[in-house]
Amino acid sequence: MNPVVAGIDLGGTSIKAAIADLDGRLLVHRSIPTQSHAGPEAVINRMAELVGTLLAESGYSAIQGLGVGAPGLVDIVHGVTKFFPNLPTQWRDIPVADQLGRLLHCPVSLLNDVRTATLGELHFGHGKTNPTVTMAFFAIGTGIGGGVVIDGKLRLGDLGAAGELGHQTIRADGPRCGCGNRGCLEAIAGGAAITAAGVRLMRSGLAPSLYELTGGNNDQVTPRAMAEVADRDPLVREALVDAGRAIGIAAANIVTSIHPDLVVLGGGVAEIGDLLVETVGSEITERVRMFPTDRIRVEASMLGPQAGIMGAIALALKKSKPQ
Amino acid sequence: MNPVVAGIDLGGTSIKAAIADLDGRLLVHRSIPTQSHAGPEAVINRMAELVGTLLAESGYSAIQGLGVGAPGLVDIVHGVTKFFPNLPTQWRDIPVADQLGRLLHCPVSLLNDVRTATLGELHFGHGKTNPTVTMAFFAIGTGIGGGVVIDGKLRLGDLGAAGELGHQTIRADGPRCGCGNRGCLEAIAGGAAITAAGVRLMRSGLAPSLYELTGGNNDQVTPRAMAEVADRDPLVREALVDAGRAIGIAAANIVTSIHPDLVVLGGGVAEIGDLLVETVGSEITERVRMFPTDRIRVEASMLGPQAGIMGAIALALKKSKPQ
Repeated sequence: MNPVVAGIDLGGTSIKAAIADLDGRLLVHRSIPTQSHAGPEAVINRMAELVGTLLAESGYSAIQGLGVGAPGLVDIVHGVTKFFPNLPTQWRDIPVADQLGRLLHCPVSLLNDVRTATLGELHFGHGKTNPTVTMAFFAIGTGIGGGVVIDGKLRLGDLGAAGELGHQTIRADGPRCGCGNRGCLEAIAGGAAITAAGVRLMRSGLAPSLYELTGGNNDQVTPRAMAEVADRDPLVREALVDAGRAIGIAAANIVTSIHPDLVVLGGGVAEIGDLLVETVGSEITERVRMFPTDRIRVEASMLGPQAGIMGAIALALKKSKPQ
Repeated sequence: MNPVVAGIDLGGTSIKAAIADLDGRLLVHRSIPTQSHAGPEAVINRMAELVGTLLAESGYSAIQGLGVGAPGLVDIVHGVTKFFPNLPTQWRDIPVADQLGRLLHCPVSLLNDVRTATLGELHFGHGKTNPTVTMAFFAIGTGIGGGVVIDGKLRLGDLGAAGELGHQTIRADGPRCGCGNRGCLEAIAGGAAITAAGVRLMRSGLAPSLYELTGGNNDQVTPRAMAEVADRDPLVREALVDAGRAIGIAAANIVTSIHPDLVVLGGGVAEIGDLLVETVGSEITERVRMFPTDRIRVEASMLGPQAGIMGAIALALKKSKPQ
């Protein structure tokens, strides 16, 4: 057996890949543009070529397995794509696992990218010290994905679709979500919603420090920029706290349902840091009254943007079989 | 080994007990008043005496084990009561399992009553045909409790407190719940809330058929009475549908989180029947858009009011160890 595996984190804009040893230590990794307009076949070839290049650079000649995190719903049993909201529709029903397996001569496991990131956090992040951890992982980017781990095992369901924590209904008649439902957490507290609130405040003259920081440029308004001025623009701070509270409600709901040991906040928005972690933590304390919650840890992701690729490595290592 | 076990379903008003064979067939069962005012010691003696009487009637001389469902938070590891909202405060920290074990000379398992009912539905109700079922159980009575089963295993957490599905926040600034939080499902759609809506409509002259059925007597207004007149009093029907939608939101939230095979509606309010099951089902369809939900079954409890005692029998049979 070859003592290395590969992982791929496929996104709408970039393909990240890595080669790792059997302890999950990255030997070499790289990111290239997805070029999704070229179609699935071309993208799959780019993925295989990237892994081939990295493998050669690592000094090994073959990989023992490949894990792939993909941005949407996949058939985890057959390794086939189902629905990718951020990629062209021709991505439907593509047997990605088979095609990559033929090109790279190894077993391939395909899984939703956020479930994959959850595996990363489980095996290489906050979950790694507790083999029977129960964990809720929120990936807060433009949208909000998630993953649920019960007693050390990633919860998948038949479709690998369990753990969509961003699509809990937080406000029954709230704004329409990209998924079609109303009032999903994602529609209220995803990066897009937070940024829209920031732009609105800035354009209304209610966020002078944000205006100064961004030069009044809407495109420069991000959750992280908003966090930077939160001490000076109280309404910007309020917008971040409102989003944190909504995430806290979703976290409290999952806490009452499964009583996890650990709630992890990942994704780009989690980089706003302590304000988010503290708001989510206090909302859990405030809302979960049926049992003591003082032993439930709320943490920012230990792996940050690396959670996805580390999860793909965990998947390749068969640390959690999708089936 | 003696081929019988016993189960007790302890409630604020009644103690139900049963003797069953090792296949869970009830041999004899009975309900007596709890008389909780007499204090824990007296109630525990009543429980033991009732089991002793039933055992004698069954023709056996000893039991192999006893399962007890108790109305609140219990320390499942030590079999000690923690917090029982509907019983006097002196019920705190009572070692019920030890005391009953000494009186009845058998191992005793103590578990929250609704988690116990979930076990009943799992092993003797809708879950019995699928040993790896994932299931969400809602017990909709005056309040709303619940239980979560993952891959055939009751989810407990350290405190046996996971599965409090009635304490999901459905409306962030909603009515204060008995638990202290605002906007819990229980506060919006529990039996007490449904009944209050019925009384309000009746007192306002907006529910003439309900008035006729109950003779205008507030105490006769129940969810079941409301269901009886729903075809004639459109606003009563609306109140039931509103409650069903709130329960459906909570169900949809748990569906997105764990993707169960089965959602079961139990407790007295579930007896209003099809209108509730259909409303919850359609709300799940409406709100869960991230993956197909057509294979998720929504059912009224197969065991109805027997779920608790059957769960206590399952607990005695060690079908699911609390630890």
